[in-house]
Amino acid sequence: MPIVMDKDALSQFLVTDFAQVKDMFTVEEVRDTGVTIRLIAGEQHLRPGGTVSGPAMFALADVSVYLAILAMIGPKALSVTTSCSMDFMRKPVAGVDLLCEVRLLKLGKQLAVGDCLIFSEGKPEPVARANMTYSIPRS
Amino acid sequence: MPIVMDKDALSQFLVTDFAQVKDMFTVEEVRDTGVTIRLIAGEQHLRPGGTVSGPAMFALADVSVYLAILAMIGPKALSVTTSCSMDFMRKPVAGVDLLCEVRLLKLGKQLAVGDCLIFSEGKPEPVARANMTYSIPRS
Amino acid sequence: MPIVMDKDALSQFLVTDFAQVKDMFTVEEVRDTGVTIRLIAGEQHLRPGGTVSGPAMFALADVSVYLAILAMIGPKALSVTTSCSMDFMRKPVAGVDLLCEVRLLKLGKQLAVGDCLIFSEGKPEPVARANMTYSIPRS
Amino acid sequence: MPIVMDKDALSQFLVTDFAQVKDMFTVEEVRDTGVTIRLIAGEQHLRPGGTVSGPAMFALADVSVYLAILAMIGPKALSVTTSCSMDFMRKPVAGVDLLCEVRLLKLGKQLAVGDCLIFSEGKPEPVARANMTYSIPRS
Repeated sequence: MPIVMDKDALSQFLVTDFAQVKDMFTVEEVRDTGVTIRLIAGEQHLRPGGTVSGPAMFALADVSVYLAILAMIGPKALSVTTSCSMDFMRKPVAGVDLLCEVRLLKLGKQLAVGDCLIFSEGKPEPVARANMTYSIPRS
Repeated sequence: MPIVMDKDALSQFLVTDFAQVKDMFTVEEVRDTGVTIRLIAGEQHLRPGGTVSGPAMFALADVSVYLAILAMIGPKALSVTTSCSMDFMRKPVAGVDLLCEVRLLKLGKQLAVGDCLIFSEGKPEPVARANMTYSIPRS
Repeated sequence: MPIVMDKDALSQFLVTDFAQVKDMFTVEEVRDTGVTIRLIAGEQHLRPGGTVSGPAMFALADVSVYLAILAMIGPKALSVTTSCSMDFMRKPVAGVDLLCEVRLLKLGKQLAVGDCLIFSEGKPEPVARANMTYSIPRS
Repeated sequence: MPIVMDKDALSQFLVTDFAQVKDMFTVEEVRDTGVTIRLIAGEQHLRPGGTVSGPAMFALADVSVYLAILAMIGPKALSVTTSCSMDFMRKPVAGVDLLCEVRLLKLGKQLAVGDCLIFSEGKPEPVARANMTYSIPRS
């Protein structure tokens, strides 16, 4: 798919339109098949022991697929998460950022589907996988 | 199933062992088939527009099934979320607490499974459904 | 929700429009919140040992939610399964029919969501749970 | 992960231990990260119109992840499907075989997790995605 918003455009969008979470995520890479998003391992996302919490990983997968859709359709539409499924497979490394690699598998008129692998930075084995479905409003 | 931790015991556990989220959730009811947990609609869980965010609903489902398991097995074991699936079906009502009704469907030696309906307080139709699986460590 | 197709109408629809599986399923009950569908435990759905296979349980959940939607909107629309999630929690009883209890949780303009508990007939504990999402075509 | 059963060994296992479905599936490839399995588009798996049914795609994903696990641990253990999630994204091409590409994401002591992309042979875009979790019995 052709990229409509590149890394700079997506990063700018994150700052202006997602002010609440702008210090939590950064855009690492935009590909024509998806994106890679970083979760900065700050205090507020950590469980006792220093590992990133499940809800923070959910938030990472959610925003990552959302940004992958925007990269392809631009900032005009207001997509809504309709469903997700996640598997938590390994404990994240304490105090380390997470990287979420998204593949955009479908970008239809009504529904978009992406899947994610989430890694502790520097580790080859994923800590979690996720798939998210977004409903795209009729414009 | 017999209840091992009642509402008071679970509420106390939430305060002492989940200090990070103790102001976010309260135990509403403990049944022999599950529990009902309240998400207090505070500023930090809201999206622009005042509705509860997806990650906050994930956190609610996650902690609710966890507490439903503890109600039946007591505070001794450290269960871990292994998978979940959620459907976001309606927009929550702005500024209103959410109630999560859990049914504990299986409590096995290795795995526990619960499902949840999440409601905006006072509304009959669910805003979301979820199912969560926990791995129970061998003791 | 008001029932548009009752038990007789749904049963007739199953025979005429689902000829391939008409000997596999029967409509047990139609409620204003959902339906109960029976899977007749025939040879072709059994694994070695006589228990119903996973794919047969998937087929049961799939057709059950589909029929729950038709019960409310009538036989006019061609809905399509877009996603599902299942947990297999207990081994079905060998040689025994399965009963699938559907709750229709959402019936929107674009998407319908139902969840299911599947029981071996006569047993109180569910063998599986499922949730299915259907896309409803614009008419 | 090192391969314990190669393509020939897995194919032989399919014939002897899965006699019920041996004419439905063939092993296409075994990699150290997963397998590719073919669903032969026979009459019994087709819906009216000639496309492969949802339950047949579920069966394909289920057997594919199972075989991916066996490729790594050998034919000794009896794994059981505990959960799955699928998205049906495009209509399969009528009368065409399906190919299921599995990535084995986790092979733990208790749980194994794999995800799948399912393609109509010759088409670049996936018709479905799935993730399956298996419980591995204690030996």
